[in-house]
Amino acid sequence: MASILRQAIYSGVYKPGDVLPTEAELQDKYGISRNTARNALIMLLNEGLITRTPRIGSVVRERRALLIHPQRELEPQPEGEIREAFATAVRTEGREFSQDIMIETVGADDEIAGRLELGDGEFAIVRRRLRYVDGQPYNINDSYYPRKIVQLSEIAEPGDIRRGANRVLQELGHRQVRVVDDIMGRMPTQREAELLQLDAGTCVLVFVRVGYDASDTPVRVAVSVFPADKHLIRYELDLD
Amino acid sequence: MASILRQAIYSGVYKPGDVLPTEAELQDKYGISRNTARNALIMLLNEGLITRTPRIGSVVRERRALLIHPQRELEPQPEGEIREAFATAVRTEGREFSQDIMIETVGADDEIAGRLELGDGEFAIVRRRLRYVDGQPYNINDSYYPRKIVQLSEIAEPGDIRRGANRVLQELGHRQVRVVDDIMGRMPTQREAELLQLDAGTCVLVFVRVGYDASDTPVRVAVSVFPADKHLIRYELDLD
Repeated sequence: MASILRQAIYSGVYKPGDVLPTEAELQDKYGISRNTARNALIMLLNEGLITRTPRIGSVVRERRALLIHPQRELEPQPEGEIREAFATAVRTEGREFSQDIMIETVGADDEIAGRLELGDGEFAIVRRRLRYVDGQPYNINDSYYPRKIVQLSEIAEPGDIRRGANRVLQELGHRQVRVVDDIMGRMPTQREAELLQLDAGTCVLVFVRVGYDASDTPVRVAVSVFPADKHLIRYELDLD
Repeated sequence: MASILRQAIYSGVYKPGDVLPTEAELQDKYGISRNTARNALIMLLNEGLITRTPRIGSVVRERRALLIHPQRELEPQPEGEIREAFATAVRTEGREFSQDIMIETVGADDEIAGRLELGDGEFAIVRRRLRYVDGQPYNINDSYYPRKIVQLSEIAEPGDIRRGANRVLQELGHRQVRVVDDIMGRMPTQREAELLQLDAGTCVLVFVRVGYDASDTPVRVAVSVFPADKHLIRYELDLD
């Protein structure tokens, strides 16, 4: 029962501010016991998906899964803010975005850096970011770039890049013209569970985007780790 | 260590037939103990990702994650076979596809049927499918259609639709011109874990596709439950 309601909230069947069916209504509608209905609502309450108010009932909270639109990442972002799709998505919901950034240099023996098709003795620059929403750790994004391309740019320096790393790549003559997105699911590693303060039994969505420039060279490999209870990935496709 | 190797196999860095580094090589490469390296390889062996052969080493098995290309589902499928993207993907890998189909009629009180924007007293037809690869249960796909549209078609009848349900919708005057795909992750329900014979700690990817016809009416809601250890979802986007 909890999983049906949870999915209905994440998918938007019940929107923030909507009142869920009462225990008695759930009991009738699904032919379940009053206890099962009550436990389901308590689970949602514990997960922070709803609030319960006397005489009003179970109200869907604003803090639901954040909608990730991978197709928007390479569109122009609003001026004056950090030009990054995730930051924009967070602000669109009226929430606050912040991040910690660490710059690391790795070799081709790093499994992911290897996807950049680095040659012998070539390195990748990794921007490792832990991203926060309203001050809470929310997801991880590690973006790998060939060092020979980015070494003299802001990409190789700690700190936010307000116009976005994709824009910097473009200025360096390596505009991404094609991306390949892979989406996987798994249990978090212990390090991820600690960094993201995950409850037991929370899965993560692993989103890997490889960006190619006009010469079909991979210029960016971005690996995001999205706690599955807090993120929903959406694509929209026109078929003509 | 196991998770790095696992991801490298699922992502294709190591392809079927490739030989993984030896315990000693892993030890050097990652600065880990011989025991850690050995345990990682044993985990992959237990998960069926590799075989170990004396004097050859750890070889990546064919049975890795199946690549799901949601963008291909609405492309024409080969003649003569079941015209369905998942079935085609399975056959492309030289594996055998089969499915059990159950037809159910549900009302708008069903959370997912509700996404079809059904009116009072309207029903949805659900094609519930448990799909097998090489005889093993592999994933679940429940596809919902408005009954008033599909009731006199093959969609409302048990059994395979060789030319595909999307083609039938098109013949009925409701060709899908736009789809919205939502991808979520979670732990499986107990029923899913039983149906799909999942090991403990296996997450599922939940893939929901809503198809709209030219009048922007939802005509199909397809919910797939993909065990995350056996599926990888891939999108390819051109940015011009």
